[in-house]
Amino acid sequence: MKPAILFGGASYEHEISIVSAIALKKVLNVPLTFIFLDTEGTFYHIPAEKMKSNHFSSGSYKKDDTLRLVRGGFEKQGLFKARALEGFDVVLNLVHGGQGEDGTVAALFDFYAIPYIGPRKEASVLSFNKWLTKLYAQGLGIETIDFQLLRIDSERRVDFDYPVIVKPLRLGSSIGVSIVKSADELDFALDVAFEFDDEVLVEPFIEGIEEYNVAGCRAGDKWILSRIEAPQKKEFLDFDQKYLDFSRTESVSEAKISAELEERLKEAFKIVYGALFEGAVIRCDFFVQDGRVILNEINPIPGSMANYLFDDFTEVVSSLVSHLPKSRTIKPDYAYIDKVQSAKGPKIG
Amino acid sequence: MKPAILFGGASYEHEISIVSAIALKKVLNVPLTFIFLDTEGTFYHIPAEKMKSNHFSSGSYKKDDTLRLVRGGFEKQGLFKARALEGFDVVLNLVHGGQGEDGTVAALFDFYAIPYIGPRKEASVLSFNKWLTKLYAQGLGIETIDFQLLRIDSERRVDFDYPVIVKPLRLGSSIGVSIVKSADELDFALDVAFEFDDEVLVEPFIEGIEEYNVAGCRAGDKWILSRIEAPQKKEFLDFDQKYLDFSRTESVSEAKISAELEERLKEAFKIVYGALFEGAVIRCDFFVQDGRVILNEINPIPGSMANYLFDDFTEVVSSLVSHLPKSRTIKPDYAYIDKVQSAKGPKIG
Repeated sequence: MKPAILFGGASYEHEISIVSAIALKKVLNVPLTFIFLDTEGTFYHIPAEKMKSNHFSSGSYKKDDTLRLVRGGFEKQGLFKARALEGFDVVLNLVHGGQGEDGTVAALFDFYAIPYIGPRKEASVLSFNKWLTKLYAQGLGIETIDFQLLRIDSERRVDFDYPVIVKPLRLGSSIGVSIVKSADELDFALDVAFEFDDEVLVEPFIEGIEEYNVAGCRAGDKWILSRIEAPQKKEFLDFDQKYLDFSRTESVSEAKISAELEERLKEAFKIVYGALFEGAVIRCDFFVQDGRVILNEINPIPGSMANYLFDDFTEVVSSLVSHLPKSRTIKPDYAYIDKVQSAKGPKIG
Repeated sequence: MKPAILFGGASYEHEISIVSAIALKKVLNVPLTFIFLDTEGTFYHIPAEKMKSNHFSSGSYKKDDTLRLVRGGFEKQGLFKARALEGFDVVLNLVHGGQGEDGTVAALFDFYAIPYIGPRKEASVLSFNKWLTKLYAQGLGIETIDFQLLRIDSERRVDFDYPVIVKPLRLGSSIGVSIVKSADELDFALDVAFEFDDEVLVEPFIEGIEEYNVAGCRAGDKWILSRIEAPQKKEFLDFDQKYLDFSRTESVSEAKISAELEERLKEAFKIVYGALFEGAVIRCDFFVQDGRVILNEINPIPGSMANYLFDDFTEVVSSLVSHLPKSRTIKPDYAYIDKVQSAKGPKIG
């Protein structure tokens, strides 16, 4: 396995993707290729020794070689002709949020026939849009928190008792999220959320609810599930606190829960993962209330790939690489066109 | 408006996309550029006078110029250097099924910042996958036909009385679809459907149900809805019959229904279209049973764009081109990275 890590991207989580890539460099015990996507849509080949955050914040990455997508990989413009970028056989999509999680990166790699680890198009769309995540969970019989959808032009009326939590519909992190304790705080919270999306989700905010995270993937017939983490909580993890996750490389200890609850969380994870998330290492964040397991959100590209939840993360990635989903080959035989050409009806061609 | 028509694609509907493009050439009263996508992922610039079906079935398109995606458009490799393909300002995505409707084309155009008419990524995924269409409709409070999802490895048991209809989950047409009249026909129908997808939808088949099609789009604040068609029916339209639609250019007459039903069909269309399908001309196929309006399917790229349902199709496209959805611009300021660099916690960079 020779992975290339794709990071950056046009996303509000552009910077944490850089942090995440630097963390993975420490964790994956294999030679790595680094491909940076800037917010303008240009790919850069970053030499491993330059993988430090100030290489990006200073803009000095702009002196590195640019890359173009071609069938099967990337190519680099040489003095006289382009040559293929060599040294990797699979790409790890580590573009958090935006293009990485909304299906863009998946579609690019599907189109250019580049093997990759990360959510496919459907998986991306269903986990990136929090309303669609709810519909998907409902379709699977998995419980979610009650919700209300507000558009930027909707009447600003909330059907729940306060406190409520307000979230932009399509951000993969806590950006733009607010806890609203009373009606007079609502307008400001909505203004903030609508900065990021024309649609906003409002949910009742349940104080002190138990929260558990499970990460994992299916590699062929084999499930690889992480230990379960009970994330550190303050009243609400803000962006900075939560996204220290993205630089995490030290493993965390297992949540102290009953074997029965552990089993139920893992079963819920498997149902959510289903066939949809094949090819990706995802993290599901669950709430547990009165013994009910409730899906809070799906992170299809968790911070630093939730490496800190696994014992041997290199092995996880390696197993998954051997079991990437395949697509059907489609070959037209032009039999239909021949039939239409000879059919009665509007003459074509 | 100077549209380029993108057609072909890696799709079981590759051929009908060619037929559809030829039909649009007759209908759109503006100069057109034609871009063919073969099933290998290569783009070709097809001169307008070569837009005949045998140019593709014979393979002679391979002598035409190839194109590459670049930011803002396509470029053509010249003798010494590449030059931009000129002559168009918007692309009409006419790749039916597969890459055209599964979100791939949308993602490519989003990524390369090329203005286009067609469903965006979320709209593609939700209409291409028939199960997700059901969940979406349910989420909107729109009725759908009852269903059951079977995977290729599921037990082959059907919960409904026969006849049932069996459909591959992710095809935009009647390909692989069967009506199953009794249990002994089930296996064969499932074998056929599983040729095309690992997941299959089973629905009760309701004989003689009324069917109505409505096409349209929203251009800014203005709805442009087509006349309502009551499609010609045999017991079930097979692929050949149904897809003569793709070459249709003659307008059809309005269905004879009450003003009240017309109004309800149009209201249902608007709810389904919502904000999700902005930028696309879609066709919704509805059933009406005992006065209830039921969504059957959403065609996010209907055959020849359902031009035959509109009085002035060029005007429809032109209005839509003036109101394409915009995306938010994202600029990192690297404030977060600076903060993380100075924060306590794992040292990065």
